[in-house]
Amino acid sequence: MQRIESHQSFAGRQEVWQHDSTTTHIPMKFGIYLPPKAIVGEACPVLYWLSGLTCNEQNFITKSGFQQFASQYNIIVVSPDTSPRGENVANDSAYDLGQGAGFYVNATQEPWATHFQMYDYIVDELPDLIEKNFPTNDKRGIFGHSMGGHGALLVGLRNVDRYTSISAFSPIVAPSQVPWGHKAFSAYLGEDKRLWANYDSLEWMKQSAKRKHLPILIDQGKADEFLMEQLKPQLFEKSAKLVNYPITLRLHEGYDHSYYFIASFIKDHFEHHAKALEN
Amino acid sequence: MQRIESHQSFAGRQEVWQHDSTTTHIPMKFGIYLPPKAIVGEACPVLYWLSGLTCNEQNFITKSGFQQFASQYNIIVVSPDTSPRGENVANDSAYDLGQGAGFYVNATQEPWATHFQMYDYIVDELPDLIEKNFPTNDKRGIFGHSMGGHGALLVGLRNVDRYTSISAFSPIVAPSQVPWGHKAFSAYLGEDKRLWANYDSLEWMKQSAKRKHLPILIDQGKADEFLMEQLKPQLFEKSAKLVNYPITLRLHEGYDHSYYFIASFIKDHFEHHAKALEN
Repeated sequence: MQRIESHQSFAGRQEVWQHDSTTTHIPMKFGIYLPPKAIVGEACPVLYWLSGLTCNEQNFITKSGFQQFASQYNIIVVSPDTSPRGENVANDSAYDLGQGAGFYVNATQEPWATHFQMYDYIVDELPDLIEKNFPTNDKRGIFGHSMGGHGALLVGLRNVDRYTSISAFSPIVAPSQVPWGHKAFSAYLGEDKRLWANYDSLEWMKQSAKRKHLPILIDQGKADEFLMEQLKPQLFEKSAKLVNYPITLRLHEGYDHSYYFIASFIKDHFEHHAKALEN
Repeated sequence: MQRIESHQSFAGRQEVWQHDSTTTHIPMKFGIYLPPKAIVGEACPVLYWLSGLTCNEQNFITKSGFQQFASQYNIIVVSPDTSPRGENVANDSAYDLGQGAGFYVNATQEPWATHFQMYDYIVDELPDLIEKNFPTNDKRGIFGHSMGGHGALLVGLRNVDRYTSISAFSPIVAPSQVPWGHKAFSAYLGEDKRLWANYDSLEWMKQSAKRKHLPILIDQGKADEFLMEQLKPQLFEKSAKLVNYPITLRLHEGYDHSYYFIASFIKDHFEHHAKALEN
């Protein structure tokens, strides 16, 4: 494991590391923010950020302004890449398939299956790596944006004993039902819809009546260009009501799908997670 | 004048506009943040941000996190490009000369003189344009980073009746004495050192004993890779002491030259300017 960037930031450090992944079989990069307490070796909780289509580990760490609040609450924040990358990794010329578009699933179909094992990477390998190498305690939260909002809801709802809290900006809540998810799941998983359901947070919400409930916050801009066709948060809200799962869904007048939206409300997401992570 | 971007941000709007400049004779872009009061038409003060080498109007608006504080203090923030740009504009293959490296001077030498009139653009044309088209009052502040820190100190010290306050991150305080400035001033202004002095904030500081004093805040990272060779804030502090000009120079352990440094202390710069702009 090799540190390739380190910048002092809000009395902590924003770093970028690269490691040889045993899950995706390719070197992977991730960002990690170490707040002031972690810098002096005190164990801190970890919040995992999953980015959206086309992003790598840089977008969130340069554009969201999250470090101000990670510093304030002394939370370690880890921001992985959205897929394996490289010349020898399968790709597609479209922005919404292949490199930059891993969709946080374990691909079963060729040419993707060799490297596109992002679900296991996010759920198992990355937390193991972080917890072995940085001063962490046993509390984990997860959040993300758009495709990464899908990832955060999916990973959190499937692993309620591993995470304490979930949040999302502008998430794809029902990938099996919208064009982005349909295209990606067909390519990575084939046409067996039972397999798709394993990676669809709406399906996990439907099954969650008797499972542990984590606090969930979702923020969505009403001027988001993808709201009606790709995101559809009302589907998630409706399913949550049916199983009596309390979630907070906030719709914000005027806001679009960009990092300007994320930056405007990132403070609230840290308050949401800090409550759960500090218990 | 044409609006090419508009994003809701912290209850205000981050916009990007393009206009045909009569000073640089080429279309120029600028960012403008309109805080909540400006959105409803109330007159607000304006803070001008000048960026550093290689930057355009995007860097500050996507990476600094300033909108949080511009919203809080209801200050309009304008972030111009650092030079004229385009296929028909003179350029150099180096990152520190030509497009992206205007150094906020009026070039007298060819091939630069036709378009590289950034001093007049920043001091005259851009404020006129902003004040005719947006709800401004008569208060202006100026700040910037690196080459833009030089620009902010220069423009503020040369025009003490037009600005109320100055601040800078990691500024080039004495361009005539360091490699970046020496290269740029030779190319744009020729070898007449009297002309260089007109664009050197250290020279303006030396002449400021009997001129109006504006509040000046300078933040500098001690781990900045350009500190010793290019920036030299101690020269500025020494000259300020000699003429009894009170300035605040803060040196910060561990911080580098990046936007992670700017984001960490941008709040303090808004507090500094707000005090002056609200009087």
